[in-house]
Amino acid sequence: MAPDVPTPSLVVDVDVLRRNIASLHRRLSELGIRVRPHVKTHKSLQVGREQLAAGASGLTVATVGEAEVFATVCDDLFVAYPLWPDAAQLASLSRLSDAGRIAIGTDSVEAVQHLAATLDRRVELMIEVDSGHHRSGSRPDDVGRIAELAVRHGLTVRGVFTFPGHSYAPGGGQVAAQDEADALRAAATSLRAATGQDGVEVSGGSTPSVGSTHSSVVTEARPGVYVFNDAQQWELGTVDPSEVALTAYARVVSRRAGYAVLDAGSKVLGSDRAPYATGFGRLLDHAAARVVQLSEHHAVIALPDGADLSHGEVVRVVPNHVCTAVNLVDQLLPVTDGRQLSPWPVDARGRNR
Amino acid sequence: MAPDVPTPSLVVDVDVLRRNIASLHRRLSELGIRVRPHVKTHKSLQVGREQLAAGASGLTVATVGEAEVFATVCDDLFVAYPLWPDAAQLASLSRLSDAGRIAIGTDSVEAVQHLAATLDRRVELMIEVDSGHHRSGSRPDDVGRIAELAVRHGLTVRGVFTFPGHSYAPGGGQVAAQDEADALRAAATSLRAATGQDGVEVSGGSTPSVGSTHSSVVTEARPGVYVFNDAQQWELGTVDPSEVALTAYARVVSRRAGYAVLDAGSKVLGSDRAPYATGFGRLLDHAAARVVQLSEHHAVIALPDGADLSHGEVVRVVPNHVCTAVNLVDQLLPVTDGRQLSPWPVDARGRNR
Repeated sequence: MAPDVPTPSLVVDVDVLRRNIASLHRRLSELGIRVRPHVKTHKSLQVGREQLAAGASGLTVATVGEAEVFATVCDDLFVAYPLWPDAAQLASLSRLSDAGRIAIGTDSVEAVQHLAATLDRRVELMIEVDSGHHRSGSRPDDVGRIAELAVRHGLTVRGVFTFPGHSYAPGGGQVAAQDEADALRAAATSLRAATGQDGVEVSGGSTPSVGSTHSSVVTEARPGVYVFNDAQQWELGTVDPSEVALTAYARVVSRRAGYAVLDAGSKVLGSDRAPYATGFGRLLDHAAARVVQLSEHHAVIALPDGADLSHGEVVRVVPNHVCTAVNLVDQLLPVTDGRQLSPWPVDARGRNR
Repeated sequence: MAPDVPTPSLVVDVDVLRRNIASLHRRLSELGIRVRPHVKTHKSLQVGREQLAAGASGLTVATVGEAEVFATVCDDLFVAYPLWPDAAQLASLSRLSDAGRIAIGTDSVEAVQHLAATLDRRVELMIEVDSGHHRSGSRPDDVGRIAELAVRHGLTVRGVFTFPGHSYAPGGGQVAAQDEADALRAAATSLRAATGQDGVEVSGGSTPSVGSTHSSVVTEARPGVYVFNDAQQWELGTVDPSEVALTAYARVVSRRAGYAVLDAGSKVLGSDRAPYATGFGRLLDHAAARVVQLSEHHAVIALPDGADLSHGEVVRVVPNHVCTAVNLVDQLLPVTDGRQLSPWPVDARGRNR
């Protein structure tokens, strides 16, 4: 642990971060899959630069605002979201097209009609399919119809994408990867049949499913969480605690028998709690402890028999979902060999549109 | 609804806000209870000024950083938190004492020992008691021992406080208010017996319990959420939907039978979901709809039979817990009579320590 970090702060172990990036990029490269990491996890130009240096083919963003920030370090961006852009967003997409290659998501005939009337023709489309997460995304068989309409209006369809979010369940990674492959294969077939085009981009991949990604189907993967990992990945068994690169340093401010209270709450850890989670976060150095209650500035820790934490002691909390935690702070504190480096700004924090 | 608000944005109905403030301050004033509103809910100097203009006796903050921000509009601040201040926080508390009256929370002999060795003697103490929420706070009977130690070290004990957070449960308001009164009465008795002092401040009050606050016991109340209200208060029955002053404007970006997907996710609504909540937020204008799935930038809405939302339509989402939603944005958009006013900065956003 690094000394004298103010609490609460989000601290990045730079050595673990770099190992995580190198390891995933090497693995996917060996499978012949390009990596287009999702920057919503870190929102930090510094981390984006490290991903590009490790061979990322471009970057994925969730919003036009994130694209504006990351255009300063990358000229190939994909907004992996079914946008319904307003005038300001349309103008921004045009400006981004001046600077590089950009694609956005879409998932319906209605959205393509809106885009056909409004979108800069340099902005390419990726058609989203639902592979089982049941959030956004068209049915795979509908992709051809949507693509044909887009092409008829002079829009360019680059390919298809999905987010197999149902990989976030115990044992879900393998199942979701199979669903993902099936949906993407059907979608790409539907797209080719409708438009006759070659060179379809087929984009998939969540962090839990990416290890099982079907290299015979996908051309690129968009993992996000793998740079830092979090308690969700730990509890899903996707990663080992030694692969957790980001923790909240927090101080014990109150104590009672069997419990300690930390000065890190939902306003720095986030409140995400998946059904399979055993609490509101984990302690990196006390595997049997659990965050049993979370308020805005308090985390109540249940301590296992015999364990103790002292008043004023600093501990490392692993957030359940790192993407929402990072979005709560203005900067990350990088450490290496117990030394603090200059803070990394969370450049795209709060860029929700 | 106001036209042309970019989505997603947090929008404040200024007329409802002002009614909420006036109504609560009038009610507590009639009971002879001073109001020291908790600004963690809004983190906005503009709203703090409105509370002070309505007669607030001072302001409550959660962190030293919030105190620094609100010291610009208020010279009587209470950090309602069991602080274990580090050197930077101690220096800040001294600077704040130059400008006005300030108190901090404490809840143990160990913390008082730390404060006795480090704290500027102008900073007063409020001793926290646990009234049933089982977060931080000493047992009421221990207050005398803690206070006696503080006084012996030349520290000033202003009084006692509690947060009856177990009011956040169906029917919890009345029960928690009784627990609160019992705990505070016992704590004040213990304090008076140990130190012999008169003029003990007795501070309580959460938004659900404040209507039942025992005026014979408490001298001040610290409600926070009442300015905006939220889906938690709505579902607890504490307020009517007409008293909800803050909503997230969000746009329908995707549709399938029975469902619509909005462009507001956990990064603008927050992810809080209490056990009694029926979803991840409510739609102000569609009482039967439910937010059944929430991702960082997607809210999946289950629509009741017969209801429909169109692609591109803008709706108003009531966050479950408004305090965490506000902390996600840089500004609030105030509207009155369908007109947008200049944005209100969230001045203390992210001030977690």
